[in-house]
Amino acid sequence: MSVIYNRVALIGLGLIASSMFWAIKRRGLAGEVTGYARSVETRNTARRIALCDRVCDTIAEAVEGADLVVLCVPVGVMGAVAKEMAPYLANDATISDVGSVKREVIAAVKPNLPNNVHFIPAHPLAGTEHSGPESGFAELFDNRWCLLVPGPDSDSTVTARLLQFWEGLGANVEEMDADHHDLVLAVTSHAPHLIAYTMVGVADDLRRVTDSEVIKYSAAGFRDFTRIAASDPTMWRDVFLNNKEATLEVLGRFTEELFALQRAIRTEDGDHLHDYFSRTRAIRRGIIEAGQDTDAPDFGRGAKR
Amino acid sequence: MSVIYNRVALIGLGLIASSMFWAIKRRGLAGEVTGYARSVETRNTARRIALCDRVCDTIAEAVEGADLVVLCVPVGVMGAVAKEMAPYLANDATISDVGSVKREVIAAVKPNLPNNVHFIPAHPLAGTEHSGPESGFAELFDNRWCLLVPGPDSDSTVTARLLQFWEGLGANVEEMDADHHDLVLAVTSHAPHLIAYTMVGVADDLRRVTDSEVIKYSAAGFRDFTRIAASDPTMWRDVFLNNKEATLEVLGRFTEELFALQRAIRTEDGDHLHDYFSRTRAIRRGIIEAGQDTDAPDFGRGAKR
Repeated sequence: MSVIYNRVALIGLGLIASSMFWAIKRRGLAGEVTGYARSVETRNTARRIALCDRVCDTIAEAVEGADLVVLCVPVGVMGAVAKEMAPYLANDATISDVGSVKREVIAAVKPNLPNNVHFIPAHPLAGTEHSGPESGFAELFDNRWCLLVPGPDSDSTVTARLLQFWEGLGANVEEMDADHHDLVLAVTSHAPHLIAYTMVGVADDLRRVTDSEVIKYSAAGFRDFTRIAASDPTMWRDVFLNNKEATLEVLGRFTEELFALQRAIRTEDGDHLHDYFSRTRAIRRGIIEAGQDTDAPDFGRGAKR
Repeated sequence: MSVIYNRVALIGLGLIASSMFWAIKRRGLAGEVTGYARSVETRNTARRIALCDRVCDTIAEAVEGADLVVLCVPVGVMGAVAKEMAPYLANDATISDVGSVKREVIAAVKPNLPNNVHFIPAHPLAGTEHSGPESGFAELFDNRWCLLVPGPDSDSTVTARLLQFWEGLGANVEEMDADHHDLVLAVTSHAPHLIAYTMVGVADDLRRVTDSEVIKYSAAGFRDFTRIAASDPTMWRDVFLNNKEATLEVLGRFTEELFALQRAIRTEDGDHLHDYFSRTRAIRRGIIEAGQDTDAPDFGRGAKR
């Protein structure tokens, strides 16, 4: 694949940015990739592992002359970072982000950008429970979705170019409006994460079950929850604070449904339970058929041991 | 390893029994393995894939002369199956099971067994979301735990032999009393499963998010829930009905905690959220250090793509 942007600036050098860098290099999608992170430690790590062609000590230096600038910082600081870099952006540059929430990010970022740049929010639906500049890998976005959220006034050629870039990173790309994005993600990601965090916290609290037992006997079920609940705390705090309404709505529905199942257990309504569990099994089948997960038992963990 | 039992009878031929068979063969732990399943279809499948040395059409034939009989049927039918096979059990035989619940299984099985056999309940903490005779593999129990629940009057040499057998299947074995077992499992497995089932059901119900979107955009989080929620409906119905009190207790604590986190989102208490998420991250670290899961990002799914 050929060069899509002459210079890409990655602002924030965590899991997503570092994976983007390695994926850009894999296909030669950019002439040069600059990187900036607020912490000296992160910048030094990036230099040590050759993450980015050029690691910059200031955001001004990183974005200067870049025709694509991608905000890869926690959702809660997107606005402030946008404001900081705004004076140094190149004319006609494309500005994007990778935040898990779109409405609040747009509200925070857009007013801080000058009029001579194009803001096309994006969200790659990919990640792992690891974080930091050393956690990235080129394959992270392969066969995953990336949702673009252009505004009604976005230039379609600018959007098309960003789409082509994300396809080059390995993703399947679709467009969606911000509110719908936030609801879909509340269901498929935000509420499940909060629930996993909660369950892991509860297990830790239950005094009669010692810590070591919870860890020792964590078979399938709890073990998978702990993986989800190991994700970056700052990132997730910001996601919940910035997708408050949709997350609370889904959690409300969840609680309602959970109460109904608890009641079925209490009243020993086995048919209700069986019907419910049969229905959810069918949904899993759909995900595998859609190519979004492996059908290998237990994610292939068993086979590898 | 040498032969531990001359004849092992596997009653019920699903994921666990079929994995036991392949693991027995891997190490030559039994002289002969007989198998029985209620359904003709399952027996035919077993014969076709050479599961068990001898597949029997009656339970009487399967248990005859067996020095170890393992009940691998759903928890809800353990009592009835024990009663059915009781007249045909060999003198001094060891009877065991693989049920995920212990107190109710003991209450259902023990009164149905004759006095000249030894009942040592067991629970291998291993499984995948797949079920049926074709889902088993020899490595399922490797480095997993198997909990033995001998009674106060159990013969220690009988228990020691069963322990040796499970070690031969690849498991680490510990003893535990039935009530404690049921509470530990409610925390580490039963409540997480119910929660995953609930979340997947909610997603399916939310009308504004179409089915195809939930499936299509199921990134980490929901995707892992769907795997858990794809487990065998009959098995899980029986688990909840038979470990009712402990499961409801844990779910009560869960709901309490979830409400506190929902409140933190509503009141925008970012510190509360961040502290909570940091604590759960540490628990995950403990599980990896205990060797109970892989540290590969996203269970190694990313690397394989």
